[in-house]
Formats: sequence, C-alpha cells, structure tokens
Amino acid sequence: MTSHSAPADASASPALPELTIRRATADDIPEIVGMLADDPLGAQRETPGDLTPYRTAFARLDGDPHQHLVVAVQQGRTVGTLHLTVIPGLSRRGAARALIEAVRIHADARGTGLGTRLIEWAIAESRRQDCVLVQLTSDATRVDAHRFYERLGFEASHLGFKMAL
Amino acid sequence: MTSHSAPADASASPALPELTIRRATADDIPEIVGMLADDPLGAQRETPGDLTPYRTAFARLDGDPHQHLVVAVQQGRTVGTLHLTVIPGLSRRGAARALIEAVRIHADARGTGLGTRLIEWAIAESRRQDCVLVQLTSDATRVDAHRFYERLGFEASHLGFKMAL
Repeated sequence: MTSHSAPADASASPALPELTIRRATADDIPEIVGMLADDPLGAQRETPGDLTPYRTAFARLDGDPHQHLVVAVQQGRTVGTLHLTVIPGLSRRGAARALIEAVRIHADARGTGLGTRLIEWAIAESRRQDCVLVQLTSDATRVDAHRFYERLGFEASHLGFKMAL
Repeated sequence: MTSHSAPADASASPALPELTIRRATADDIPEIVGMLADDPLGAQRETPGDLTPYRTAFARLDGDPHQHLVVAVQQGRTVGTLHLTVIPGLSRRGAARALIEAVRIHADARGTGLGTRLIEWAIAESRRQDCVLVQLTSDATRVDAHRFYERLGFEASHLGFKMAL
C-alpha cells in the first residue's frame, strides 16, 4: 500500500489543510477506537477504556497483507479511518475484489469532504491492488450515506444480509 | 477448517445421499469454474475453456488462511461450492466477521436442500473461526434468494453497493 498525501479538494472547501491518508500503526489504536465508539451503535459495542482486545486484533490485521487499515491525518490530528480488505477469488476469471468496512470521520471533521477523500483513496487503492470490483454495505436506514456512495459511483445493486453469531 | 460430513437433512428430502463439504483442492478447479459459468451472468464473465487465470487465483487463495473455498460432494460428484472469507477488524472490540461469496449449486442438484446445507456449513464455520457476524450480499432482483437467506436467519438490514473498476 502506498501512503497518499495531497491538497484537499478545492471545490469542497478551499481552506482545508493538507490531508495524509496512511497505513495505521499500533499507536493509532486509541484514536481509531475513539472514532468507532463515537456513534450511537458504536457507543454500545466498543470499549475505548480497555484497548487490549483492539491491540490483539490490530496485530492479527497488521500481519495480513490483504488488510489495509488506514487513518486520515490533518495537522497532526487523526480525523478519519477506513478498513479495506482485498479478497482473492475464483469468480470473474480469478479476480480479486475489495471490501470497504469501518469508515469513520471524526465528529469535528464531518462535512468537510473528508469522507469523499477516504472513499476515493479506497477506490484508487483497490485498483492498485488489481481488484475488478469494490464493494461495501450501508445500513438500510442511512439514506444520506446511500446518496453519498451513489454520487461517488457506487450502485445499490444488492441487498446486504447479516447474521449475528 | 474442518471437513464436514453428515447425512442430508431428513426433513428436506429423506432420499438424499450423504453429502461431504470439504476444502477445495486444485483438482476441483474445473468443476468449480463450470458451476460459476453455468448462469446468465457467469456465462459472460467466466472462461471454463481457459483455466489458467483460475489456477493462479486458486494458488493465491489457497495460501491465505483466511480464505475457505469449499466444495460439496455427493456420490463422487461436485454439486456445490462456496467461498467464505474471515475478515479481522478493530470494530466490535476487535471482532472478526465472515463474508460469504460465490455460492453455486450444480444445475442437477438444485431444489434438494443443498443450498441450505452449504450456508449452514458457512454459518457453523464462521462460529468456529470466532466470527461475531456473518454477512453476504444478494442481487436486489433475486427475491427468491432473499427469502432463502431470511429463512436461514439472515436479516436484510443493509444495502449492498458495488463499483466495477
């Protein structure tokens, strides 16, 4: 994975400082977990006061070349995160696909075009990884998110089924 | 991954012979690709006459401990296939999730409860792999498939977004 750094999209907000999207390190775990916990569902699911399970999971994830956990950093602050997984497969003549999960934008940085920048990074990285397809699921009730992904070129062609185990 | 062998579900069809669900080997590639190609979309996407790209992809997949490509075998015939991917992550206290892709049942074996058996295998394997969630997407037009997954306990809680690269 390449680290990506570029000026913010001038059309979104000309005043945005430079944004760096880079591979997460173990030092980023507290900031990432803080963002995961900072929403109504996440508040119930996450334990930012006990990082031990996250450190274990990070080590597993970091040792897997198909996992690309990144953070977006602006003026030294962690303002976003995203997890991209490259999945090899036999279908479509042995093509790989990419899956986007765990997209989070820091509360202070929402509405600045950062979500667009993160997803565009994921699309570009999926291409670099020779994936023929990039996919994600979004909760059926999140109509704003659906419009966001459609604007970026995704098609809501599927239903997403989940089962808690 | 454990190999799974059990008598067929008596309630589905008491006459079904024993079914084995096992990890795919390189020798299974022609049968798997044949099933991938045997539907309207697959017929355009796959090249069962040229297995080279599939062999390359199989080697990549087979060397990755998070990929579980299986075949269902009945009386020596390959009658189904499924690809399960275990995805580590930070969310939900560092939980792993499982993704089901490329479910195919041989044309001769449809309507025999085999799809149920394959998905039940995937759910059980996801549990064995300590996943807290198992997920899949299904084309929005495939209403019968949606009912099938809901009967098995999945909830259509999400929209599935895809983008060809």
